[in-house]
Amino acid sequence: MTRPLALLASTLLLLSAQSPQLPLAGFSPDTARRQFALEKDFDAKLQRQNLQQWLKHLSAKPHHVGSPGSRAVAEFIAAQFKSWGYETEIETFYPLFPTPKSRLLEMTGPDKFTARLAEPPVEGDESSAMTQGGLPVYHAYSIDGDVTAPLVYVNYGLPADYDKLAQMGIDVKGKIVIARYGASWRGIKPKVAAEHGAIGCLIYSDPRDDGYFMGDVYPKGPWRPKDGAQRGSVMDMPTYPGDPLTPGAGAKSQTLRPDFKTAATTLTKIPVLPISYADAEPLLRALAGPVAPPEWRGALPLTYHTGPGPATVHLKLEFNWQLAPTHNVIARMKGSERPDEWILRGNHHDAWVFGASDPLTGMVAVMEEARAISELAKTGWRPKRTLIFCAWDGEEPALLGSTEWAEFHAAELKEHAAVYVNSDGTSRGFVHIGGSHTLETLASQAARDVTDPQTKVTALARAKARLSVLGEPATPELTISPLGSGSDYTAFVDHLGIASLNIGFGGEGSGAGSYHSNYDTYDHVVKFEDPDFLYTLATVQLGGRLTLRLANADVLPLRVDNFARTVTKYAAEVKKLAGDLRTQTAARNALIQSGAMQLAADPRQTFIQPKPQEPVPFLNFAPLENALTRLDAATRAFTALDLSQLPPEKAKALDAILMRTERVLTRPEGLPRRPWFRHMIYAPGFYTGYGVKTLPGIREALEQRFWQEAGEQIGYTANALEAFAAEVERAAKVTSN
Amino acid sequence: MTRPLALLASTLLLLSAQSPQLPLAGFSPDTARRQFALEKDFDAKLQRQNLQQWLKHLSAKPHHVGSPGSRAVAEFIAAQFKSWGYETEIETFYPLFPTPKSRLLEMTGPDKFTARLAEPPVEGDESSAMTQGGLPVYHAYSIDGDVTAPLVYVNYGLPADYDKLAQMGIDVKGKIVIARYGASWRGIKPKVAAEHGAIGCLIYSDPRDDGYFMGDVYPKGPWRPKDGAQRGSVMDMPTYPGDPLTPGAGAKSQTLRPDFKTAATTLTKIPVLPISYADAEPLLRALAGPVAPPEWRGALPLTYHTGPGPATVHLKLEFNWQLAPTHNVIARMKGSERPDEWILRGNHHDAWVFGASDPLTGMVAVMEEARAISELAKTGWRPKRTLIFCAWDGEEPALLGSTEWAEFHAAELKEHAAVYVNSDGTSRGFVHIGGSHTLETLASQAARDVTDPQTKVTALARAKARLSVLGEPATPELTISPLGSGSDYTAFVDHLGIASLNIGFGGEGSGAGSYHSNYDTYDHVVKFEDPDFLYTLATVQLGGRLTLRLANADVLPLRVDNFARTVTKYAAEVKKLAGDLRTQTAARNALIQSGAMQLAADPRQTFIQPKPQEPVPFLNFAPLENALTRLDAATRAFTALDLSQLPPEKAKALDAILMRTERVLTRPEGLPRRPWFRHMIYAPGFYTGYGVKTLPGIREALEQRFWQEAGEQIGYTANALEAFAAEVERAAKVTSN
Repeated sequence: MTRPLALLASTLLLLSAQSPQLPLAGFSPDTARRQFALEKDFDAKLQRQNLQQWLKHLSAKPHHVGSPGSRAVAEFIAAQFKSWGYETEIETFYPLFPTPKSRLLEMTGPDKFTARLAEPPVEGDESSAMTQGGLPVYHAYSIDGDVTAPLVYVNYGLPADYDKLAQMGIDVKGKIVIARYGASWRGIKPKVAAEHGAIGCLIYSDPRDDGYFMGDVYPKGPWRPKDGAQRGSVMDMPTYPGDPLTPGAGAKSQTLRPDFKTAATTLTKIPVLPISYADAEPLLRALAGPVAPPEWRGALPLTYHTGPGPATVHLKLEFNWQLAPTHNVIARMKGSERPDEWILRGNHHDAWVFGASDPLTGMVAVMEEARAISELAKTGWRPKRTLIFCAWDGEEPALLGSTEWAEFHAAELKEHAAVYVNSDGTSRGFVHIGGSHTLETLASQAARDVTDPQTKVTALARAKARLSVLGEPATPELTISPLGSGSDYTAFVDHLGIASLNIGFGGEGSGAGSYHSNYDTYDHVVKFEDPDFLYTLATVQLGGRLTLRLANADVLPLRVDNFARTVTKYAAEVKKLAGDLRTQTAARNALIQSGAMQLAADPRQTFIQPKPQEPVPFLNFAPLENALTRLDAATRAFTALDLSQLPPEKAKALDAILMRTERVLTRPEGLPRRPWFRHMIYAPGFYTGYGVKTLPGIREALEQRFWQEAGEQIGYTANALEAFAAEVERAAKVTSN
Repeated sequence: MTRPLALLASTLLLLSAQSPQLPLAGFSPDTARRQFALEKDFDAKLQRQNLQQWLKHLSAKPHHVGSPGSRAVAEFIAAQFKSWGYETEIETFYPLFPTPKSRLLEMTGPDKFTARLAEPPVEGDESSAMTQGGLPVYHAYSIDGDVTAPLVYVNYGLPADYDKLAQMGIDVKGKIVIARYGASWRGIKPKVAAEHGAIGCLIYSDPRDDGYFMGDVYPKGPWRPKDGAQRGSVMDMPTYPGDPLTPGAGAKSQTLRPDFKTAATTLTKIPVLPISYADAEPLLRALAGPVAPPEWRGALPLTYHTGPGPATVHLKLEFNWQLAPTHNVIARMKGSERPDEWILRGNHHDAWVFGASDPLTGMVAVMEEARAISELAKTGWRPKRTLIFCAWDGEEPALLGSTEWAEFHAAELKEHAAVYVNSDGTSRGFVHIGGSHTLETLASQAARDVTDPQTKVTALARAKARLSVLGEPATPELTISPLGSGSDYTAFVDHLGIASLNIGFGGEGSGAGSYHSNYDTYDHVVKFEDPDFLYTLATVQLGGRLTLRLANADVLPLRVDNFARTVTKYAAEVKKLAGDLRTQTAARNALIQSGAMQLAADPRQTFIQPKPQEPVPFLNFAPLENALTRLDAATRAFTALDLSQLPPEKAKALDAILMRTERVLTRPEGLPRRPWFRHMIYAPGFYTGYGVKTLPGIREALEQRFWQEAGEQIGYTANALEAFAAEVERAAKVTSN
């Protein structure tokens, strides 16, 4: 039921979309006025029915990377861009992409059971019966394997879960583990399982996490039905994404090298397969051993035990190892004044099966944005900077299309790319923007200038209302979240140091239950995610404002003070982390050494007391603190300057410096054990996968208790911040000269 | 599996049971030495096989109050006490006690279903097949009723749950509610349901709370099987416990007054019935309406909806309304020096069915304690003070036996009773003691002097090890918890102001799944709760030390400084509560008045915004603070005195004053809306039932937002503390004169 909102109108006046007389980062009052007028024209050109028609068309058939469907989708999109006047090309790469040849999962004892491994059609969803040519349920970049062993339930399969198992006296060495989806990116689970000696890994969707516990299942409700399973990549992307065979370079060769299995270091070490909870339930029911800890238990109607065994399972997987043509659509509109400054705007077009929600809701929004901008261009307007729209292929397996393209064009991108703006699936709810904190004001102002379709207040006001109800501290701007990984911004921000954003709406549409399954369909989107395409349209408005403002601003709208404020907070966090670790380690060691931990354990349960840990030394945070002091002074001085009447040549010089601010946050040597990841402020976590780690060099060294490395990384991070401060000092000089 | 503990021996030396050369509250070094020798003799007389034999005998047949089984149990216990030389009587009361005449629960639509309402025998448990004469599953003191209405799921059925329903636009008026067991005493659920206009109430045991989610179900494991249900009282005991017809007086009349239904104001207002989850599942599955909030969802394999309906249920209940003879066994051993000071030690003997765990593990511990003391008496030893052992009947329905006895003997108890020590079911695990904080040192020293059977360290050391692992702050003594309700200490502490303790072991034995069911049997206890009766024996040692020390001490071992320290902490809590309520109310009102709360809600779900609340005024806490200052000074002065060489007449005078310290904490007018509860420091919560509210007058007025009442109760509570301080000042004077 939709509640009428009219009654609220009076109280909401202060929150509602205001006349466009507000400050606009990068613009003077005069140029801002012209920009607002342009955006009004842009809005007037938007056609909601395009979103619906394209979504229906593009999601009609399976279109994973390498499939005829994907080629057709790329060609359709390219044809549209061409028809709108963009300089368009399809740029194809050839990364390694395995598809299943055979999949077998059976319980060989104590009972016999063979897993179904299939997602049957459901009533009321046309697409779910038309999976011809689609990928079945599997994990991309699992190795081939044929293993039989007792089963162990490992909860989410994260390092702390194995610590707990060790305390319970349970070793997974030589066993097959079954983990549930959730709490980390899926690829972490087989990686950690292999680190602990497991020889196979199953990952199932517990109804606690996205099934009937959460709400009615498809087709009655949006949640995952009993046979639904989650496909996905399990490549070791926190080490490097993209083609496993060509890290740091574009995959242009069409010949598979013979030693590809050993050369591809990001393949899993053990075979791994996703299963539904209908397939998981008989296995879990056949486990004995201790009862799993309370927080490990899901929503299946059984007592969760850890094993090992008596359930013994046989897992046999074979893949077709081949290079898949990966078709990126690249469409350009040349800038009129500063053509050598590039604004990139992208979304992927490939899907696991139909991908109506993921990625097509975002893809059609980018298309409509580009179409409306082309309409503006027909009136004689031109962007000041060059616009490049990108429709990526192969995002699902490993961010293949965007990574290969970014690697291949690295030199020119480092020279010219100002900002990359990404989107992916979008749905009903609240605006969310993650990204480089130099772009926070830009993002916040865009959210301020888009109306929330359901409540008619600004998207910013609605997002802030939600935060205030959640008890978050109030801030005048939208606080944007740092980027981890999980979509195509990764190579831009983490590898090349290009300031990036990732944008969308969500939180009220329910896509979690169809995610990466046969049921991510047009019908599911229309019924449960964005029924009237109003939020897909709002995504067009949001993306359009960002793109147009980045393209037209007098000076690139990058705010160094937001960055300085945020990074100072991160520094305080890692310093506190070091202190907390020190206190916790001392307390835990005391519990072990006094015997209290052993005494508190139930003597009728196995309890292996953990060993005391090395005490946490004090670290030298001074280089970081000195860098922050310089950064603070530099950003204050620069922010105090009036940029509104800057002559064009100075503005251009300033742009060049501002573009470099993100670049200098990278370190050519990259992060420890993963040199591809070069950004010293943001990275996906080595043991979280999607989840971000800010100041990753320092933070992960602390978390992994590498004290010497933590000290070194403090220095490298401080160097990056010093370099950022130096750019800001240069910017001030250029501006005031 | 039991882990060998030998390896730990070296590190545990400091924690292990020491030679008895430690201070003993109430004793001089000389008398302490003799006391320790006596306790050594006591331990030597204990016979573990008595516990096993009595438990088996007493749990052989159903023995609820009013049944032939209960009479037989009382007579058996009385005969034992008599045979040990105690002056023993059976003192019988006649309170109202309804038993089921007919029970019907059916779903009339959309599907037909009739609830089974029965607990079938399980394999491997002899008793579970021998329920002849036992009470079926029902709630005592539900009114008769015959109602049919749509069903609403109300989570735990507490006030906050109805607030949430109101926000979702759901009203239970005229409906039947289904609540799950847990989070409060069961009797709160029908009370709150009726306050909100419901016409019937079902309470079921969700497998999340004590079924398969927690562990394997009976008989494979200890947890509640699908047809298991929890009997219990639903009388409004937070208003007053005991016979509903004779509050404040002993139920001696054997004639049921004709207007009993209106006179008995503590009956429920609506019919209520407990059911198993096998009976609940079809009803819950037939609910539609919104999906229940995440924290409301249990472990059944379905999506929890709130309703109302379409499930419509018919609930028909009829009871036999009669007076039940309630047989308390009272056994005395007269004191040699101060016979007019009474030490009471009790446990109930009645059960819902077999009651092997609840109450018999505790009951047989009290019997063995009394037997061993009688053996000591045969050697010529006599307690200084009078010992009274009590085996209560009718505890399960409403603390009937203890309450009627305490009310009937109120005058002499107020004159003579020094301390009441209670126990109830006990099992494997950690010592736990609740009670009056004047008894904290006594309790702690007793726990210090009992060895934990599994680890061989002291019970105190093991309890403290557990707390330290849980991250609780370390204290030298065992911190005892304040008493709420749920066992027979209630009338003593809350109505009469007699310092009380409630003692036992637990946390590793698993009685929760058999609680108040047919499966609380000898087999269940032996298999899962206290396999070798080692913790039942430890309970004898603990109870024996408390009883013997209370009986023999030179001066009653009540420590006023522990009380002062604890009550000061409670005062800080209520003051903080008032401040927190003020801040939270202001923040919540701001969210409502700004429109943020409405804006953050999903417009496709019904959301009724709550009304702003009256702002929280500042209250005058000065009287409480002044009282605490006086209390602090008085207790410091008294505690500094040396009591070790006090002449007998002064010791006796001091005893009389110390006995009064708890008495003066009561207020004759009692708490608001429940005058039977007179203690100003401890009470069961009006909306928690068992759960304690400390400084209940102030705390509950704040929680219920009665600001004026809160101010008044600050004054009354301050008066009680001033009176306590005055007694302490008198004690110092008497002692030093």
